[in-house]
Amino acid sequence: MNLLLLEDTDRRDDGTWRVTGRRAEHIRRVLGLDTGDALRAGLLNGARGTARVRDRDAEGAVLDFEAERAAPEPLPLRLILALPRPAMLRRTLIDATSLGIKDLVLVHSHRVEKSFWQSPELEADKIREKLLLGLEQAGDTLLPRVHLQRWFRPFVEDELPCFARDSRCLLAHPGDDAAMPCDLTEAVTLAIGPEGGWIDHEVDWFREQGFACVGLGERILKVDTALPTLVGRIMRLV
Amino acid sequence: MNLLLLEDTDRRDDGTWRVTGRRAEHIRRVLGLDTGDALRAGLLNGARGTARVRDRDAEGAVLDFEAERAAPEPLPLRLILALPRPAMLRRTLIDATSLGIKDLVLVHSHRVEKSFWQSPELEADKIREKLLLGLEQAGDTLLPRVHLQRWFRPFVEDELPCFARDSRCLLAHPGDDAAMPCDLTEAVTLAIGPEGGWIDHEVDWFREQGFACVGLGERILKVDTALPTLVGRIMRLV
Repeated sequence: MNLLLLEDTDRRDDGTWRVTGRRAEHIRRVLGLDTGDALRAGLLNGARGTARVRDRDAEGAVLDFEAERAAPEPLPLRLILALPRPAMLRRTLIDATSLGIKDLVLVHSHRVEKSFWQSPELEADKIREKLLLGLEQAGDTLLPRVHLQRWFRPFVEDELPCFARDSRCLLAHPGDDAAMPCDLTEAVTLAIGPEGGWIDHEVDWFREQGFACVGLGERILKVDTALPTLVGRIMRLV
Repeated sequence: MNLLLLEDTDRRDDGTWRVTGRRAEHIRRVLGLDTGDALRAGLLNGARGTARVRDRDAEGAVLDFEAERAAPEPLPLRLILALPRPAMLRRTLIDATSLGIKDLVLVHSHRVEKSFWQSPELEADKIREKLLLGLEQAGDTLLPRVHLQRWFRPFVEDELPCFARDSRCLLAHPGDDAAMPCDLTEAVTLAIGPEGGWIDHEVDWFREQGFACVGLGERILKVDTALPTLVGRIMRLV
């Protein structure tokens, strides 16, 4: 946790903030902070700044917070990801968030097992928990939006044109396709397939929506390795 | 497992190959192959090609192998990594291997807990196991060399000049440093620090050896996220 996130519900009438549970544990056990000590903090979907421990008790900590600067700039990259298996979903969500992605669609694909959609990991509060972990890691405050799309074709035909509007559309696809470009200056929509890749029909549907197939060379990467590899390549650093 | 790796010790006098254990299980259970069926295979440190099941029994499978093409080109990237915590080491080794890195130094650093060096995960056969998993994932055959360097300063002063010779030397370092360049045409030596980063002294020592500090922006990434992010950026795709 490189940033303590404060939520509206932590705010008290006197303008101070009270945190309990995991965050209070972090203040007490991991950081070993006492009254008067300061730590990096941020308001969820708001500014970053400094929190100072005003008071501590067995269950929680009361903090003052002073805003200092805006959240890091969102990465201009929208991500479409074939739903990963539940064991991989946690890491994928945390990584996507810590890399700065703010719009993420989890979509069905022919090679996604239908049972993955039954996973309790897809419940809204479970997803939110991972997004918060990613923000805390990165030192970011802006919660990503995650959209679940259980039906591939209606998504691609009806929702994708709007989701991907005004962006360069890239489909990560192993094979002899063009090399993934790097350091892109424009907004990008990137689609990453499941283990085994998109099937031909799916590739065709993406292509009809203006997506270009790009690859990372001949080595086959797991989805959770491919995600940061692709994002690292695309992201523009200034 | 996208490639079945055959080792010298699997070779029989009649020129066929016999695999047991995890690889035989993969042929039987995961792929469900029978006599006459084919799968992608490769010789460890040798060619890639096709294996065909000649015979199966309860413990193993006998295969014919036909070489077809060379291993993928090694990534021209040497990696120096502050020893990650044992729980992160597995993933880091597998990822580095599947990305195509062939030379990897695990080095001590001020912020690496000394106890990490006692981990059984650092035993040669445990490391080799992870490298094989990375190769099987990527479809590669060339085993990386992993060097353990328990003493930071002797490594940097005595061994690093040779390890990093004739390469562009980059030190991944969060902060206001120059942006990590991308799509590099020359050979690169990349050094990635521990959680919390290299300390100032360590940065100075690397700088004295010709390393330039580069960053990925203001978000803080875990080492196992930073590794593919950095490699994806650096790697040249043709």
